[in-house]
Amino acid sequence: MGSGRTTQASRLHPALPEGSFEIIDEVEALLVGVAGSAPADLVEPALGALTSGGKRLRPLLLVLSARMGEPRQEDLLGAATAIEVLHTATLIHDDIVDRADSRRGAPTTVAGYGREIAAATGDYLFAETFSELARIGDPRLIRAFAEASVGLAAGELGQYRANGATVDVEAYLEHIRKKTAGLFQAACVAGGTLGGLSLVQIDALASYGQALGIAFQMSDDIMDLVGKPGLMGKGIGTDLVEGTVTLPVIFALGEGDAEKIRRVLADPSPTPELIEAGIEAVLATDAVARTEEWASGEIDAALEDLDLLPDSPEREFLESVASEVVGRDV
Amino acid sequence: MGSGRTTQASRLHPALPEGSFEIIDEVEALLVGVAGSAPADLVEPALGALTSGGKRLRPLLLVLSARMGEPRQEDLLGAATAIEVLHTATLIHDDIVDRADSRRGAPTTVAGYGREIAAATGDYLFAETFSELARIGDPRLIRAFAEASVGLAAGELGQYRANGATVDVEAYLEHIRKKTAGLFQAACVAGGTLGGLSLVQIDALASYGQALGIAFQMSDDIMDLVGKPGLMGKGIGTDLVEGTVTLPVIFALGEGDAEKIRRVLADPSPTPELIEAGIEAVLATDAVARTEEWASGEIDAALEDLDLLPDSPEREFLESVASEVVGRDV
Repeated sequence: MGSGRTTQASRLHPALPEGSFEIIDEVEALLVGVAGSAPADLVEPALGALTSGGKRLRPLLLVLSARMGEPRQEDLLGAATAIEVLHTATLIHDDIVDRADSRRGAPTTVAGYGREIAAATGDYLFAETFSELARIGDPRLIRAFAEASVGLAAGELGQYRANGATVDVEAYLEHIRKKTAGLFQAACVAGGTLGGLSLVQIDALASYGQALGIAFQMSDDIMDLVGKPGLMGKGIGTDLVEGTVTLPVIFALGEGDAEKIRRVLADPSPTPELIEAGIEAVLATDAVARTEEWASGEIDAALEDLDLLPDSPEREFLESVASEVVGRDV
Repeated sequence: MGSGRTTQASRLHPALPEGSFEIIDEVEALLVGVAGSAPADLVEPALGALTSGGKRLRPLLLVLSARMGEPRQEDLLGAATAIEVLHTATLIHDDIVDRADSRRGAPTTVAGYGREIAAATGDYLFAETFSELARIGDPRLIRAFAEASVGLAAGELGQYRANGATVDVEAYLEHIRKKTAGLFQAACVAGGTLGGLSLVQIDALASYGQALGIAFQMSDDIMDLVGKPGLMGKGIGTDLVEGTVTLPVIFALGEGDAEKIRRVLADPSPTPELIEAGIEAVLATDAVARTEEWASGEIDAALEDLDLLPDSPEREFLESVASEVVGRDV
């Protein structure tokens, strides 16, 4: 710091503890390097996917977790890069299965390059994740990443996309534990491991990561219905359109105008009016409030987990990440 | 041995050194276990893919390489299982990209369960590979597997499928090194590592594995044109139909009736007559003989590599595997 330079990470995460900016910026450079060393046909799609404006939340969790201890800098950079590479591989594969056209305002890899290239790019990034981890050589890291990957593969199936069929809260929770929370958890565990924290502390980070991931996903679900905070207008109901039964939708199905909601979920290409009616039907219940309450409960648990970690700027930032998830300001 | 029991492995590989039968049979059981511990929706497709009658050549190479030294039995079983799981994951993803309907006479995973389930099954098996390797905990193994995986992802693209465009021998070789030889090499390196062999010996095994893989693929290419040895009739020209430019096809394009060959390669669904004419055009040249000669050269190199390994029943079997590849009796 002190150079007056405004790094990319500093713009995204203005409250980051000293030294963390630079690491995330170095991760950005390493991500470009991963794309650059891809097989020729995959360089461009890999670069596009790896630099499409993600907020690097997973590398950030990893770095902050690690820096509560004393990580080796090179391993830290490698692992932080690896977790974003794995995350990106997952997004690419998800978009193939979902036939998604755009993500973060840009065409998806599958939309831009076709299924064959997209599948190979995802597989390359997946392999590259473990290649990087092999360089670090710590089996505990590899275990954390591999377990998260097994969960991600299971989560691909979208088991809770039931097109109006009954989906219960347990099935939803199991799905988001695998699909979102598992990678948050792996990031925190890998970080704590690299930092040389105690097993008790690493366990606490694992719980924190999982609770944070669950709250993060619930918050995402809410945003799909009510829109982003600070922005005018309603949510766009993408989950409803895709037939994805999120927690607020489950709650609303149980207490509101279930017919209107089911109609959107079941329709492969619902009209704007139908979507609007579906969103209204959810918002007419207290489904969003109940979901917020659940997410807050997760956040409370996450904050409690952090009590076991050393008092440090990093812990403070992890606390603020948790607090802000419910406000969606991360 | 001595129990009089005819194991599955003993039927497939009648000349296996003592003790190796049982290991490969245990690998069969572990593969069933991998499927059994898959997420619920993936158990059946994973089981189908993992038990569809592969000859377990890669686990066998790994086991034999290891048993020239002194591997820990549990690690050996885990690694031998992992390499077949990785191989199976690759086949599933390849079949999705190629839209293949059948493999080894049975419906492919994608044909039987659809793209979504097949993709998730492949990703699950891929993740499970590294999960198993993390249990073993040797970074050298993980490196060998991860490097092979990076190559496999690149190889997915079928860079030498050029629908009649010029493909040179170098591009073909690069492709099969990644797509076939890389995993053979990883099997041998992982085995040698687990056995505690010297670096020089592990290097020799790496060369052996690569040369064997190249010869194996060339032999496969030939079989597609001339049929399986011992069976009546010609090959079925699947590679030609799929537009895959194999080594004999490259040779034939350079010296034969290129027009007839290009016509099959370029036609998305060629008639049986067109395929027949294409095969005839290749067989009218000495392309097959030249390919056999190249494969024999690789096998000679492979056999030479084995000179550095301890004189043992395992080495003898690896030698016989190499010798028989050209005769396609593996």
